[in-house]
Amino acid sequence: MQVDTLIHARWIIPVEPESVTLEHHSLVIDGGRIIDLLPTETAKQQYQATNIENLPDHALLPGFVNCHTHAAMTLMRGVADDLPLMDWLQNHIWPLEGKWVGESFVKDGTDLAIAEMLRGGTTCFNDMYFFPEITAQQASHHGIRACVGLIVIDFPTVWAQNSDDYIEKGLALHDQLRHHPLITTAFAPHAPYTVSDGPLQKIRTLADELEMPIHMHVHETRFEVDSAQGQNGKRPIERLNDIDMIDPSFIAVHMTQLNDDEISLFAGAGAHIVHCPESNLKLASGFAPIAQCLAAGINVALGTDGAASNNDLDMLGELRTAALIGKAVANDATAIPASTALKMATINGAKALGLDNEIGSLTIGKAADVIAIDLSDLETQPLYCPISQIVYAANRQQVTDVWVAGKRLLKQRQLTTLDIETLKTKVADWQQRLSS
Amino acid sequence: MQVDTLIHARWIIPVEPESVTLEHHSLVIDGGRIIDLLPTETAKQQYQATNIENLPDHALLPGFVNCHTHAAMTLMRGVADDLPLMDWLQNHIWPLEGKWVGESFVKDGTDLAIAEMLRGGTTCFNDMYFFPEITAQQASHHGIRACVGLIVIDFPTVWAQNSDDYIEKGLALHDQLRHHPLITTAFAPHAPYTVSDGPLQKIRTLADELEMPIHMHVHETRFEVDSAQGQNGKRPIERLNDIDMIDPSFIAVHMTQLNDDEISLFAGAGAHIVHCPESNLKLASGFAPIAQCLAAGINVALGTDGAASNNDLDMLGELRTAALIGKAVANDATAIPASTALKMATINGAKALGLDNEIGSLTIGKAADVIAIDLSDLETQPLYCPISQIVYAANRQQVTDVWVAGKRLLKQRQLTTLDIETLKTKVADWQQRLSS
Repeated sequence: MQVDTLIHARWIIPVEPESVTLEHHSLVIDGGRIIDLLPTETAKQQYQATNIENLPDHALLPGFVNCHTHAAMTLMRGVADDLPLMDWLQNHIWPLEGKWVGESFVKDGTDLAIAEMLRGGTTCFNDMYFFPEITAQQASHHGIRACVGLIVIDFPTVWAQNSDDYIEKGLALHDQLRHHPLITTAFAPHAPYTVSDGPLQKIRTLADELEMPIHMHVHETRFEVDSAQGQNGKRPIERLNDIDMIDPSFIAVHMTQLNDDEISLFAGAGAHIVHCPESNLKLASGFAPIAQCLAAGINVALGTDGAASNNDLDMLGELRTAALIGKAVANDATAIPASTALKMATINGAKALGLDNEIGSLTIGKAADVIAIDLSDLETQPLYCPISQIVYAANRQQVTDVWVAGKRLLKQRQLTTLDIETLKTKVADWQQRLSS
Repeated sequence: MQVDTLIHARWIIPVEPESVTLEHHSLVIDGGRIIDLLPTETAKQQYQATNIENLPDHALLPGFVNCHTHAAMTLMRGVADDLPLMDWLQNHIWPLEGKWVGESFVKDGTDLAIAEMLRGGTTCFNDMYFFPEITAQQASHHGIRACVGLIVIDFPTVWAQNSDDYIEKGLALHDQLRHHPLITTAFAPHAPYTVSDGPLQKIRTLADELEMPIHMHVHETRFEVDSAQGQNGKRPIERLNDIDMIDPSFIAVHMTQLNDDEISLFAGAGAHIVHCPESNLKLASGFAPIAQCLAAGINVALGTDGAASNNDLDMLGELRTAALIGKAVANDATAIPASTALKMATINGAKALGLDNEIGSLTIGKAADVIAIDLSDLETQPLYCPISQIVYAANRQQVTDVWVAGKRLLKQRQLTTLDIETLKTKVADWQQRLSS
């Protein structure tokens, strides 16, 4: 049979089923989808392909799903470090955003983020930022998959005047992207402390009608929880639950402050958590009890957060940090084993976005969002267990190739849809402006 | 003036004084030492050099000092993950060591570690393992600086029969290395739970006579502290203090379990702590209160621990983890700022080893142990603050060049004293044997 692409790999780690590593297997891609996964010897007999890739030292995996980004903020990487969250936001990030954020900032910042993400094996990102139409446009242009957040916040910004205006603009974008093959949308009310009940209730109704996810920062810091309790006697999750937000459409990001009741609530409701360990550590926001959440049956995905608080969009680094910190917080070295960390970075992210029928594992029928990691470097030798090696020893520079929906976006470390030198020049210009 | 080497760099971060970044400066090296550090424009007028390096996108730093390794264990990278410390040691690591450790294991494992360390910018390592004479020989052969631990443990191994035998062999090696330009020695009693008072008292006396450091795992886990208290009513540090171990020669590794009295004791005594955050997290050993130790005035250095529990020897990754976890543990986002993390990985390590007159900063008169990090990658753009960028965003693959005592051991990512292909073949052989 004639197909588009045949990838012969030393190892294939499909993620589903969990903990499986197939040796000397091949992935067969046609029409942007995985149509077969079988031993290389058989594949060579059964398929002829336009593109044949031999990856003798590589593991093939599903692409990483970065479930929480503010892509354009990559232009603010390292602009203000070693500061607590509110100081960082109020005295550095928000003033810079007020001065500089606009269509061209979002365009160039998103391009930088996409380039970094593709070079690190991320094939889908769940974004929250102003000018989401620009984020969608750039993701589409460069061929990466994205769930674009329709941001809502009580106060006016350069993008919208008030919560109705945010929602209206978001809905227009949702309509426009409705049949896009790569881009989906989610409502993205910023946080409990920046969005009041009125707009949240509107979002709840619209999300039900349109079957859209709701992406929100929740319980990021103890300060957030304490202030809310001081103001209205409720922890933010209690307030959100009172207006029916906590359900399978709800994607709660950070969640460092959780009591047992809240964990039970999320588990029972089928709501999702996005864990951003490096951002939480860097801003001293707290330790999310991830092993406990997973044990309760909650779907936990992973995100890098924006590069202004991380300072990278490195999902391989992030899943390693999640595995390491998860053990220490649980006081149990068997917690968050390598295979779980890998699920959090792939299929769990797909589930949170409602895309698990489409992406998140190398499964026949799913879209061909695939990455290859070269394990032949000295730093990943000797090699006793590929999954463990990827999680605990590999670096993102070992990601050699990336396909999204069967299209090759990274080829032997070279981006195919972005010109790095042009991008660097634009980024240097923004650096000048933001430093001035 | 004619000199050996002149390096013109975009940035020089000397580490001492702290937080300083010099722009368009040059490092002048002659006879293996730093003889000048001055603006490039002036350097070009004052010096002629045999080797001239232009590093227009790079930061020059002192090489990293990895203050706790078991280099040869790199052959066991990933052999047993996601296990608690005692299970991991007793059921996996110790049986494998019993079966395989010998001169050739230590030779090849140390070579692998040295290759990985040099490629990641480490120019000095503080080791603890069997057959330290082989570790010393390989470090010397490949030109990397090392402090080789003279291991002592109560039970017999293939290297020595009993504690007297360990000490005797160690002393012989110390004598042999006495005038070596790159290799020093330290006593390395393994841990309080594996070395009894008798040998510790001998070591104390000998260390005083010979002015040698003492390198020891201490308070790694709560289990260690609780068992000791159950057995003799004393926490290990109390016991060690009773036999006068806690003084400026003492290098205590891990130290996750510390009360205020113990922190005061270490601060008052001028003893050193080596923090190994990734190993502590991975083995769920506990959270070392590093910000508190630093605030008390203790010299805290950094180590990766062995690659069997990390699973890499990546000091740039380790110092990032130290900065991130240090903030979260202190509940203070301003704790362990980037410049402090960089000190922990360089000058503080040099201090712990008693080598701070020789290495640890780019200071005129010190040995030329220097590394270059290329910050032009997309992942380190834009660039507002080089120190912050190195700590929070750079990857070890951006280390392009490494000099130890003025000799270039990594040249544009290529090792000059190790052949990678030969090494890979040997490592593959060990993988076969250890897997069998």
